[in-house]
Amino acid sequence: MTWTIYLSGEIHTDWRQRVEQDATAAGLDVAFTGPVTDHAASDDCGAAILGEPAEPFWRDHLGAGVNAIRTRTLIEQADVVVVRFGEQYRQWNAAFDAGIASALGTPLITLHPTEHDHALKEVDRAALAVAREPEQVVSILRYVTSGKLGS
Amino acid sequence: MTWTIYLSGEIHTDWRQRVEQDATAAGLDVAFTGPVTDHAASDDCGAAILGEPAEPFWRDHLGAGVNAIRTRTLIEQADVVVVRFGEQYRQWNAAFDAGIASALGTPLITLHPTEHDHALKEVDRAALAVAREPEQVVSILRYVTSGKLGS
Amino acid sequence: MTWTIYLSGEIHTDWRQRVEQDATAAGLDVAFTGPVTDHAASDDCGAAILGEPAEPFWRDHLGAGVNAIRTRTLIEQADVVVVRFGEQYRQWNAAFDAGIASALGTPLITLHPTEHDHALKEVDRAALAVAREPEQVVSILRYVTSGKLGS
Amino acid sequence: MTWTIYLSGEIHTDWRQRVEQDATAAGLDVAFTGPVTDHAASDDCGAAILGEPAEPFWRDHLGAGVNAIRTRTLIEQADVVVVRFGEQYRQWNAAFDAGIASALGTPLITLHPTEHDHALKEVDRAALAVAREPEQVVSILRYVTSGKLGS
Amino acid sequence: MTWTIYLSGEIHTDWRQRVEQDATAAGLDVAFTGPVTDHAASDDCGAAILGEPAEPFWRDHLGAGVNAIRTRTLIEQADVVVVRFGEQYRQWNAAFDAGIASALGTPLITLHPTEHDHALKEVDRAALAVAREPEQVVSILRYVTSGKLGS
Amino acid sequence: MTWTIYLSGEIHTDWRQRVEQDATAAGLDVAFTGPVTDHAASDDCGAAILGEPAEPFWRDHLGAGVNAIRTRTLIEQADVVVVRFGEQYRQWNAAFDAGIASALGTPLITLHPTEHDHALKEVDRAALAVAREPEQVVSILRYVTSGKLGS
Amino acid sequence: MTWTIYLSGEIHTDWRQRVEQDATAAGLDVAFTGPVTDHAASDDCGAAILGEPAEPFWRDHLGAGVNAIRTRTLIEQADVVVVRFGEQYRQWNAAFDAGIASALGTPLITLHPTEHDHALKEVDRAALAVAREPEQVVSILRYVTSGKLGS
Amino acid sequence: MTWTIYLSGEIHTDWRQRVEQDATAAGLDVAFTGPVTDHAASDDCGAAILGEPAEPFWRDHLGAGVNAIRTRTLIEQADVVVVRFGEQYRQWNAAFDAGIASALGTPLITLHPTEHDHALKEVDRAALAVAREPEQVVSILRYVTSGKLGS
Repeated sequence: MTWTIYLSGEIHTDWRQRVEQDATAAGLDVAFTGPVTDHAASDDCGAAILGEPAEPFWRDHLGAGVNAIRTRTLIEQADVVVVRFGEQYRQWNAAFDAGIASALGTPLITLHPTEHDHALKEVDRAALAVAREPEQVVSILRYVTSGKLGS
Repeated sequence: MTWTIYLSGEIHTDWRQRVEQDATAAGLDVAFTGPVTDHAASDDCGAAILGEPAEPFWRDHLGAGVNAIRTRTLIEQADVVVVRFGEQYRQWNAAFDAGIASALGTPLITLHPTEHDHALKEVDRAALAVAREPEQVVSILRYVTSGKLGS
Repeated sequence: MTWTIYLSGEIHTDWRQRVEQDATAAGLDVAFTGPVTDHAASDDCGAAILGEPAEPFWRDHLGAGVNAIRTRTLIEQADVVVVRFGEQYRQWNAAFDAGIASALGTPLITLHPTEHDHALKEVDRAALAVAREPEQVVSILRYVTSGKLGS
Repeated sequence: MTWTIYLSGEIHTDWRQRVEQDATAAGLDVAFTGPVTDHAASDDCGAAILGEPAEPFWRDHLGAGVNAIRTRTLIEQADVVVVRFGEQYRQWNAAFDAGIASALGTPLITLHPTEHDHALKEVDRAALAVAREPEQVVSILRYVTSGKLGS
Repeated sequence: MTWTIYLSGEIHTDWRQRVEQDATAAGLDVAFTGPVTDHAASDDCGAAILGEPAEPFWRDHLGAGVNAIRTRTLIEQADVVVVRFGEQYRQWNAAFDAGIASALGTPLITLHPTEHDHALKEVDRAALAVAREPEQVVSILRYVTSGKLGS
Repeated sequence: MTWTIYLSGEIHTDWRQRVEQDATAAGLDVAFTGPVTDHAASDDCGAAILGEPAEPFWRDHLGAGVNAIRTRTLIEQADVVVVRFGEQYRQWNAAFDAGIASALGTPLITLHPTEHDHALKEVDRAALAVAREPEQVVSILRYVTSGKLGS
Repeated sequence: MTWTIYLSGEIHTDWRQRVEQDATAAGLDVAFTGPVTDHAASDDCGAAILGEPAEPFWRDHLGAGVNAIRTRTLIEQADVVVVRFGEQYRQWNAAFDAGIASALGTPLITLHPTEHDHALKEVDRAALAVAREPEQVVSILRYVTSGKLGS
Repeated sequence: MTWTIYLSGEIHTDWRQRVEQDATAAGLDVAFTGPVTDHAASDDCGAAILGEPAEPFWRDHLGAGVNAIRTRTLIEQADVVVVRFGEQYRQWNAAFDAGIASALGTPLITLHPTEHDHALKEVDRAALAVAREPEQVVSILRYVTSGKLGS
């Protein structure tokens, strides 16, 4: 069985690459999915395809609708959802994805520095693991999918 | 992952072909499903297979039952449902399909000219995108499945 | 047990009153719910409360969102959904509501003149009864809730 | 029918009181629920009842568990969930609650200033209304529960 | 808590009265629901209300639709479903109701003479109790609702 | 897409072979599943594997449990459930399977002679088609899976 | 709102009374449910009502079926499930109930001495609180239902 | 169709190997899944990957969380769940898994010596078969997947 892992949250650091490279190096039987991480494309997709609305609120609304076609489908199909909260930005969409995963009963792993522990306590309580580094996420995936604790 | 896209609604124009050809040309990893679009077959299937009833109401009822075996199954298995409302006919079955998709939580894209905007506002509100042309549907599918906004 | 009956669809004739008066006269243990039937209020509610957007599409979108808070909640709580298709207008929202009821597994009664039988065959196939007059709906409700066929 | 409205999010301003007072003044048939808004009690409840753990991470974990018994139950029972994002704090738990409401299919109203529009676009897209002031939330509830647009 | 008990199946003997009288005599906190047991009304309800169709198959279809509005709603709301298989008739609708209860996860009690044991083994396997006499059903309900085994 | 069709009910005639041969001859993209049709094995499986109980009731119970592991799994995975009621036997398990399919929302086709129409009216009402001959079932499957009405 | 709390597990100590008395003394708006705690009645109910089977395995099976009518219904209706693991007996049914509550998404509180921590780690991980004394359970219920941390 | 069988419970005897070898020898079309059976790895996985907490309770909590990512996912994907209760240890997690399978409606087979019959009666009641030896489990799987009773 190939496990499908949805990587949600922060798009401005290289954490997804670190997770994916490590998982590939370890030969894990996993497939990664996630939102579109091209920030400009993600912001523009609605207006670019469906036309520019007169007001910025509706521009965001259009784009968020198009992105949701992707994200809702992939979150629903994921075996595990990993949510990364970075040091910058409010990343409410990351917490929103975590709420969806929790309500669906999909195992959730959060990934964030300790400085956010208190602010994220409700989200972390719904998670089955709280990691600090991308490499820990890969170690969890190795153990979960192969039963091996790794070196 | 191959995305399964159900194309519901209007059967008297070439919109399905335009969507499918464009998607093929763009090399999208999608599979299209939909109702039987041979109008005569769709109307006759019940009576042709199960026997002619005495009254037209039950003739329609027989045919609608047989068609529903197909449509309910395929809508339930779709990742995305696209519903086309054309310029003619009342197309209540298109709106009915949209209601099913909405209740199932399946992402919905509507496709119709602006003249129907007011009459379709409840359906459009449940959709994640409202397109005007089949090509926009394909642009959405390209972005959603590949993360590329296209040219 | 008080049965909750959601009356969906056409808002320009007196069919809801006829159903409700008949049911009251018959002493049925039913409570009726439905959408807001004040057409102007229904169209304006979004913009009136949340502010006028620059474009009519978004005006409808705002209003449809506010109305959906009511209609989705009440449809989900209904024991039976009755959907009326009148002689005028396209009434896609009526068919949309029927699709939701069908997907939820809530018993559905349609109410429409025979001239729409062919166009409504998919919706009617999902219904447990197709009535022509409001009084028939009440007869069904009397039988269903009390076991009496009535005079 | 009494509508149950869950008020999620920001606990440092008087927005809940404004909503509740306005709703009472308007005579709405609604009941409000929400998280414990006594910040100290909310932070301490786990350790105070179950004992102080050695590490702050687990102190938060204990408290978040006890609070979740309340919040998950009440969110699941709500007819409508209102989520307030204030001007301060990251309020990831508010977005988390919105994700749960969205996955449950419960109608969602967000309440936040326009400055957060872009950051909240994914959450707002899942909402049926985006309000700026508590009084607008009450206007929506009045319309939704009574069909009246109010003065 | 008042327990709601749906009594499905055979309508030609007095088993429902025996269950209801015994339960009343024992002062149980239960409410009984069930199909319409007036055989003629049950057969005629569709045609009487909606009009006589030309063919007997559709006459039955009409009636079964109207009855299903009642039975599906009440079975779905029941805490316990009791299904009686009598000595006569094929009573496929009783087994059909048992299948629905089983799929819904609603506790099922069957009631039938031993001579049907082999033919009913699949249905009995899905039941939590197989009774032979109506009085045993009441003894089960007394125990289940009050914890008393009774005299 | 290969459609999975569960063939439930009567095991003493060759209807399954007729369905399967016809479907193969027509080149349909379907896979058939069903209960174990070796009557002796089906009756004996529980006692043969798990040991003979002292009483025949529990012998049936053991066997029905083992068979249910197969039937519940396959019914739940089926795209369409076909239920055959033959001229002999009571076949309550066929009606029980139909109830499960109905509650799961899986499209249902019944197959039986007209003489059972009245007794099966509740089951037929839940079906999307009522066939008389196995060949009609195949014609429905051809139409449903390929959109062709056949010759 | 009255919260319904199911008290599962150990029946040989007075922990239920301690929870109920404390909750009454504190004036909490809660209603307690649970299995039948009369050990003899619980063991005998099946055979006493339905007849003595020849083998002890089936005697237990009969009794467990009758008890399950009560326990499954009440667990499903509970807002919170509390599961007590005592110092004696294996209490697999307590862990079984915890598994059901977890799968249903119902908030779970476990109650057991520290000596069982390692053996119960999987169950505790699914719980939102792990209490050691009945009084802690009441403190949690007070906080959860009233928002007060108590003295 | 390849059946997926989750093997839950006891990890200190060779029952899983006996099941798997027998199934392989019999050429069954099954795939086995289960928890990590390396006891040390299972106990250490949380602390080894995520860091040692100060208290043993949280060490177990960390490990149970990581293991649950695997077990919840695999139990949910299983067609059949087999739960083994051995002669030693309390094995509450086995009963917990059985509760989850039961609530999910997944067919359950228990495997344990007769000495535990009384203590396991609630779990066994929810099972579709109670086996004593691993070879019986394989015989059930052969029958269920192939319809053959075996030699």
